[in-house]
Amino acid sequence: MRPISLSLPLDRGSSTPIFEQIAAGLRRGIMSGDIAADSHLPPTRAFAQQLGVSRSTIVTAYDQLVAEGYIQGHPGAGFTVERIGDVSLPSSVPAAKVIEAPGRKSLPFRPGEPDMRLFPHRAWGKAVSRVCRRSPEVLLGAAPRFGLPVLREAIAQHVADWRGLDVDPGQIIVTSGAGDAVEMSLRALCSRGETAALEDPGYRPLKEFITAQGLKPELLTIDDAGAALPKKAQLAILTPSQQFPLGGSMTPQRRHEFLRWAEERDGWLIEDDYDSEFRFAGRPIPALAGLDNSRTVYVGSFSKIFSNTLRIGYAIVPQALLGRFAEVQRQFGTRASMMPQAPLAEFMQSGEFYRHLRRVRRTYGQRRQHLVDALRRDFADIGQFTDHQAGMQIAFHLPQEISDQQIVALAAEQDIVVEALSSYCHATTKYNGLLLGFCGFDEEEMQGALVRLRQVFDLVKT
Amino acid sequence: MRPISLSLPLDRGSSTPIFEQIAAGLRRGIMSGDIAADSHLPPTRAFAQQLGVSRSTIVTAYDQLVAEGYIQGHPGAGFTVERIGDVSLPSSVPAAKVIEAPGRKSLPFRPGEPDMRLFPHRAWGKAVSRVCRRSPEVLLGAAPRFGLPVLREAIAQHVADWRGLDVDPGQIIVTSGAGDAVEMSLRALCSRGETAALEDPGYRPLKEFITAQGLKPELLTIDDAGAALPKKAQLAILTPSQQFPLGGSMTPQRRHEFLRWAEERDGWLIEDDYDSEFRFAGRPIPALAGLDNSRTVYVGSFSKIFSNTLRIGYAIVPQALLGRFAEVQRQFGTRASMMPQAPLAEFMQSGEFYRHLRRVRRTYGQRRQHLVDALRRDFADIGQFTDHQAGMQIAFHLPQEISDQQIVALAAEQDIVVEALSSYCHATTKYNGLLLGFCGFDEEEMQGALVRLRQVFDLVKT
Repeated sequence: MRPISLSLPLDRGSSTPIFEQIAAGLRRGIMSGDIAADSHLPPTRAFAQQLGVSRSTIVTAYDQLVAEGYIQGHPGAGFTVERIGDVSLPSSVPAAKVIEAPGRKSLPFRPGEPDMRLFPHRAWGKAVSRVCRRSPEVLLGAAPRFGLPVLREAIAQHVADWRGLDVDPGQIIVTSGAGDAVEMSLRALCSRGETAALEDPGYRPLKEFITAQGLKPELLTIDDAGAALPKKAQLAILTPSQQFPLGGSMTPQRRHEFLRWAEERDGWLIEDDYDSEFRFAGRPIPALAGLDNSRTVYVGSFSKIFSNTLRIGYAIVPQALLGRFAEVQRQFGTRASMMPQAPLAEFMQSGEFYRHLRRVRRTYGQRRQHLVDALRRDFADIGQFTDHQAGMQIAFHLPQEISDQQIVALAAEQDIVVEALSSYCHATTKYNGLLLGFCGFDEEEMQGALVRLRQVFDLVKT
Repeated sequence: MRPISLSLPLDRGSSTPIFEQIAAGLRRGIMSGDIAADSHLPPTRAFAQQLGVSRSTIVTAYDQLVAEGYIQGHPGAGFTVERIGDVSLPSSVPAAKVIEAPGRKSLPFRPGEPDMRLFPHRAWGKAVSRVCRRSPEVLLGAAPRFGLPVLREAIAQHVADWRGLDVDPGQIIVTSGAGDAVEMSLRALCSRGETAALEDPGYRPLKEFITAQGLKPELLTIDDAGAALPKKAQLAILTPSQQFPLGGSMTPQRRHEFLRWAEERDGWLIEDDYDSEFRFAGRPIPALAGLDNSRTVYVGSFSKIFSNTLRIGYAIVPQALLGRFAEVQRQFGTRASMMPQAPLAEFMQSGEFYRHLRRVRRTYGQRRQHLVDALRRDFADIGQFTDHQAGMQIAFHLPQEISDQQIVALAAEQDIVVEALSSYCHATTKYNGLLLGFCGFDEEEMQGALVRLRQVFDLVKT
């Protein structure tokens, strides 16, 4: 069967991204019957040429429609239109506007920001509805303090498949995001007045967590092998898989040094594995917690795959420490809502979660490549970066004569949101550069933002 | 039309409460068609006599079936059976078992524990499903840091109707339960080394919150007018509507003294209004925050009406402090999941929430009366209490020669969970008694537990 031929008017001045315009046009055609069920859609490459857009834009639009159930992909044989007799379009009720509101157009380079336009909201809604229909009690049910058993089982399976961790579901504590897991770990493992180490540069709230609990922070500089070993601390919070924000993973040798350090000092490691699902090349880097099960608390999160408004993360705790964590939960209460837990388990076990994860990995990989190519092509005279082929952002280092804070301020005037590397530095380090998130927007949007960012640099250089 | 006559076998030795057995029997009859649509159910009084149960047990069973949509109540004219062609019974999937598991039978007198068997789980599931169908994006949507606007509007309406508070939705911050709201308030209003005052006796986690943040606790004793004024603190956490755990409300005079104290010292008040919806007689007591809008942060929660596993509470913050709270959220992140917010707003605005609230108020009021009557009749020789006609528990004071801790331990051996008043005392006070929650179980279950509790006392007294 020959692919149909389609024409679609695109509005490049619109605030609606091109891939969404394409998806919307196809969706309308399918709903109205203009594009018949079982039709073959145009091949991505040809369609991209015809519309004058990048091929990955077409792929993103098709992926979106696959996620929504309008079309079906056949490996190596293109895409066909589904029979959509039973598909009802979500009506545009007022509530839907809410998510559009908070300034989409200023998202560009925000680090760690997933593109929620790619999320299979309908499939998620259906998973939630299935739980509502089948056993609504479980949405508000009492459960063990550590979280719903069926979700903890799904997480155990997830970290086994993705992180090579062999853990018992009983070791998993469901938390309200990774921050809650880190706070809980600090409470369980440190006493007032003790010292906790964190990476510098690093994730900014960590220092707040540490000082707010009456602990002293020790800052660890980053070298080529990873974070330096602590000198005073009893506990270190690390990002071994992908240092945040610089990128790059800790060497096996340094990992072993940290484990030895913890062993000798009777110390603890918190492994913040915040976006390990996003590694685009090479072998996955094993989790530190996989080397050691007695001194490392592993912290994971669904914020990068789901939205961070789901507020579900987890801590994987060595058996011997479970009692301490239970005591902390007894004293301080739990923060994780029960409501998302059964639907999330359902979503993971049905495979929807992994279909989405594979899809965004592919899309984010393309966006990463686009950014890497653009930086090499158009920004080589300005700064430098290392392509770590992982994560959701790239640290682009600037020479000292260009102030990253100044670039951030000037870019903001052009509606370009970009973060300064120096804003992630605590005290011991001084990095100067931009942290460029590449997941939150598609290549067309990114290209437009890069053109304006280049103009900002040209302004400063002259 | 004459009411039908029904016979129902009841198993008084079963772990299923009598009201549930009655509801289940009627439900089965309605589903099978044995009880025809439009039939009049037996009047509550006559049915109670026939079955040999209390009338309120019948009322609870009927309320349950009204909530589930099987029957309809006609004020002054009894109950009729609905046409249930479109009602599908929730199938008993494994997930449903989870909520039954964690030791129902040891719940008896746990304070502040709602009876989740009365919750209209199906209606809640339907509200969630409506949101899923209409706008699934909103379940994971970005929203202002302070929470989903539509929920904050519903909360503003709620506190206007129930607590006489006139607030702008912009002042409301949705939190992960009341504990999160208190922690956030302490972070926004106190600096390390300052002193925060709390009531003694009081809600136990408060002292942890205070000391964990590097603040010094000041303990406030309770007299007939309420908590004593602080001497050193910059901030006081109070339960003016209903002192926890002793019961009783703060006098208007003491409230004004606290407001004056805050004004003169440049101090802050946190009003923990944890169960104010449950006042069973007399006029509602106005919230302290209603007297003053500049120095009082009001903290409310859905944990007593919904389950506390929903993890949704709220802080109502004076306009001038909103910036400080926003800064705390920026530093520490948010803990409240977005997912329950749209469904909860929907549930409130559709009126389902208030139908449930009215129903449990009536039921809890009956259970309270049952406990009050039993204490007066069967425990008058043992201890004493004041009937404050509010809240979800009664403080039953014991003479010094009977140790509350000993009673708690002996009761536990009889599967009776009851908490010692002394366990709520910090340092300055020494109360001796039992805190008897009366909401979590029905009169039949309570009666059985009271008989065994009386036996425990008899054991100790001889």
